[in-house]
Amino acid sequence: MTTTTSSGKTMPESGYVPPSPPRNLFAVDLALRLLLLASTVSALVVLATSKQTKTLPTNSLPPFSFATRSAYFKDSPALIYLLVALSVGVLYSILTILASCFAITRPSPSPKLYFLLIVYDALMAGILASATGTAGSVAYLGLKGNSHVGWAKICNVYGKFCRHVGSSTIVTLVASILLVLLVILSSYSLYRRSH
Amino acid sequence: MTTTTSSGKTMPESGYVPPSPPRNLFAVDLALRLLLLASTVSALVVLATSKQTKTLPTNSLPPFSFATRSAYFKDSPALIYLLVALSVGVLYSILTILASCFAITRPSPSPKLYFLLIVYDALMAGILASATGTAGSVAYLGLKGNSHVGWAKICNVYGKFCRHVGSSTIVTLVASILLVLLVILSSYSLYRRSH
Repeated sequence: MTTTTSSGKTMPESGYVPPSPPRNLFAVDLALRLLLLASTVSALVVLATSKQTKTLPTNSLPPFSFATRSAYFKDSPALIYLLVALSVGVLYSILTILASCFAITRPSPSPKLYFLLIVYDALMAGILASATGTAGSVAYLGLKGNSHVGWAKICNVYGKFCRHVGSSTIVTLVASILLVLLVILSSYSLYRRSH
Repeated sequence: MTTTTSSGKTMPESGYVPPSPPRNLFAVDLALRLLLLASTVSALVVLATSKQTKTLPTNSLPPFSFATRSAYFKDSPALIYLLVALSVGVLYSILTILASCFAITRPSPSPKLYFLLIVYDALMAGILASATGTAGSVAYLGLKGNSHVGWAKICNVYGKFCRHVGSSTIVTLVASILLVLLVILSSYSLYRRSH
C-alpha cells in the first residue's frame, strides 16, 4: 500500500520512515556543547578581568597615609586552579563541538563515540565541579570571613573583585551541570541502542 | 554438529556458551562500590574525629595568660559541606551495593539499570568532587595561609585537626575517582550491549 504526499519533494524524514534517534539527540548534544562553550568562555573572561586596584588608608603618617593595593586572581591558588580548569573546559568544548558536528551528519553514530563522550564528559564534569568547590570556598571566605580562625572578609573592600569571582564560580557550576546532562544524554542514547 | 564434553555436569558457563559479559562486570562494579563505601566511611570518621583542643598563651596577665581554644569542623561551612556530602555518599554506596548484589545474580542485567547507575554515579561524582575542592581549598589555606589578604595559617597550631581534614579530603578525592570509574564501567557495559 503506497501513499502519495501532497509535497513532491524528497524529505529526509518523511512520516513513513522511523526517524533515526541518535541523529536527533546529537542536535541536543550540539546545543548543550554550545552552551558549555558559552559558559566556560564567559566564566573565563569574567575571572580574568577581575583585577581591582584600590587606594586604601594606612596607619602611617602623611604622605604615606594611603597605599595602593590590588586584588587579583593570581593571589589565590584556588582561583588559579579555576582559571586552568576553565581554560581546559573551553578547549574541550571546542573539540567536542567538532566531534558533535561530525556525528550530527551521520545517520547512525557509532556506540564507541557515545562511550568516549561519556568517559571524557564525566572527567571534565569532575574537574569543573572540583574547581567550582575550590573557588566557591575562597569566595565564601572572602564574603563572610571566618571569625574562628581570624580570617577577615575582603569583599567589603574589593567589591568588584568579589562580584567577578562569585559570578565566575556560579557560571562554572552551570558548566558542570551541563556536562552531567551531557553524560546523561550520551548514556540515554546508548541505552536506546542496547534494547 | 554436536560435541560431548568430558564433564557430565551442567555448568552455567561451559566453554560452548559465550560467557554473559554483564555478569562479570557487575563483580567489578560491586568491588568498586565496596571500595567506595570503605573510602566514604573512613573519610567521614576521620573528619568527624578531627576536633582538637589546645591551651594557647594569650596577651592577658595571669591567671588569664592561657586560653583553651578548639578547632572543629563545624567552624567552617566548607567542612560541614564535606561532612554532608560524605554522609550522602555513604548512604548512596550502601543502596547501590544492594542494587549491585541484586544485579550480580541475574544472567543479564537490564540496560535500564546501567543507565540509572550512570546517571546517579555521575551526580554523586559531581557532588563529591565539589566537596573535595571546597574542603581542599580550606585545608590549603589552613596549611599555607594567604599573605595577600592577611589570612594566617592555622596548621602550625592545630596540627592534628589539619591532618584529619587533609586526609579526609584526599580520601574523598579517591571516592570521586571511584565514582568516575563506575560511570566508565557502566557505560562500557552499555556500549558492549549496543553492538
